[in-house]
Amino acid sequence: MHEFDALARLTDELGVSDDCAAVGTPDEANLLLTTDMLHETTDFPDGVTPYTVGWRSAAISLSDVAGSGGRAVAVVAAYGAPEFDDGLNGFVRGASEVCESVGAEYVGGDLDAHDERTVVSSALGATNGVVNRSGARVGDAVAVTGALGRTAVALRAFENGDAERGNGLFAFPPRVPEGVALSPYATAMTDISDGVAVGAHNIADASGVGIALDGALPLVDGAREDDVYVGEDYELLFTLPREAVDEAREAVGETGITVVGEVVEDGVRLDGEPLRRRGYEH
Amino acid sequence: MHEFDALARLTDELGVSDDCAAVGTPDEANLLLTTDMLHETTDFPDGVTPYTVGWRSAAISLSDVAGSGGRAVAVVAAYGAPEFDDGLNGFVRGASEVCESVGAEYVGGDLDAHDERTVVSSALGATNGVVNRSGARVGDAVAVTGALGRTAVALRAFENGDAERGNGLFAFPPRVPEGVALSPYATAMTDISDGVAVGAHNIADASGVGIALDGALPLVDGAREDDVYVGEDYELLFTLPREAVDEAREAVGETGITVVGEVVEDGVRLDGEPLRRRGYEH
Repeated sequence: MHEFDALARLTDELGVSDDCAAVGTPDEANLLLTTDMLHETTDFPDGVTPYTVGWRSAAISLSDVAGSGGRAVAVVAAYGAPEFDDGLNGFVRGASEVCESVGAEYVGGDLDAHDERTVVSSALGATNGVVNRSGARVGDAVAVTGALGRTAVALRAFENGDAERGNGLFAFPPRVPEGVALSPYATAMTDISDGVAVGAHNIADASGVGIALDGALPLVDGAREDDVYVGEDYELLFTLPREAVDEAREAVGETGITVVGEVVEDGVRLDGEPLRRRGYEH
Repeated sequence: MHEFDALARLTDELGVSDDCAAVGTPDEANLLLTTDMLHETTDFPDGVTPYTVGWRSAAISLSDVAGSGGRAVAVVAAYGAPEFDDGLNGFVRGASEVCESVGAEYVGGDLDAHDERTVVSSALGATNGVVNRSGARVGDAVAVTGALGRTAVALRAFENGDAERGNGLFAFPPRVPEGVALSPYATAMTDISDGVAVGAHNIADASGVGIALDGALPLVDGAREDDVYVGEDYELLFTLPREAVDEAREAVGETGITVVGEVVEDGVRLDGEPLRRRGYEH
């Protein structure tokens, strides 16, 4: 991976111009690994900046770490493009800054000459207690962090030519601190990368339970009710014992959590109606 | 990363259908991270099988871990393709088997609908002593593992319609055990992913020394002298004190090492002639 040099130099991080990036081994008992591919046609709307692509690419992997309740340690990226121009510089800056925002290190990556701009970020996390999707128990509350519909609103902004707003919304904050704060309380958790319906189905399937949502899902400014199915919200959907809700809310702080339903015996429903597995499937 | 499910299911590894794959934290002091992108146009000759693509993709990242002297722990892959047919199955099987061959776990990944088949593997390694490119000292011996020219010979086999031979050569053994065995002796090391000339220049530049190679580079059956510049050989190029050569050879065992030169004050030369930085640059 000689391109480490180029990517590392851009980040002013010396000492990583080797075959691998090296980081100190975390103290936690478990490591978390995740990887995500994005590419121009599907994932980069007209008007998106390289900085936003770098931020979002790393943030999506960091969001997976958050969904498992882990601390973020390091990110590497593979960057394929027809040419390595200023776009690469912006990409690395965006990726580095989102890593820094959650206490992780951006440690370099690989460059590849590719007809279609394609980026893959891989994140390393650490935790003493992995939160899986499989631990939801009947009677648990179902809750989300923050508010939903952010990507849908961003896509409309890009479509309407308001690239500044689109970029601002696209560069979302990965909920890593929130995931860490929730990990002592959450019985099951996932990031809502494919919409709230898919997230609810995933937890229900993995836990062998049902989930009953009520209609009062928290929405970002400008979002419509249907926007929660667009996916790529990157908030956390989690279950926890009712009696832990207040403590969890306090632990999460400013971002906030909203109870949106409860874990039931079977079925995934919204306001009593069956909620199909509706959302973004790559 | 809901596609973890699909990739994990194919590998019959249960329990990883979550946002991240979780692995136990290694005992070693340092973790190694590396990522590599391959895509159809450049990296997959006509006749290459999905199994070979999976093997080679993971092997390239494992080779980076080897180049840093690390033990291989886990690999994730991102797989982009127009459709997810049997090719994905073969890919996962190849990636899993090369991981298994060096004691690492293939723990899943991401799927992406992509016009051009594009794969990115990311490997996690662990070591108590990272071997960088920067530690070569004047007077050290320069050596390689195995024999060079393998990928050049493979490419000719594919061109000549001998896909069986091409695939066999393309699915190379990552030199992870050899890298671990060499790590107590090597003062600098890299995998020869871009050809021996580039590798020598990288070590010389990083170490602030020169490298004098002699012409007796070990070649695989069917290789020509020029094939050592094609790159993607994935053998290890390393420097070590002269007096450690015998012990290092014994530690590496069957794969063998060949002394191919020595570390000098400056310049990179082959048989006394300047050797330009000639090889495969992505």
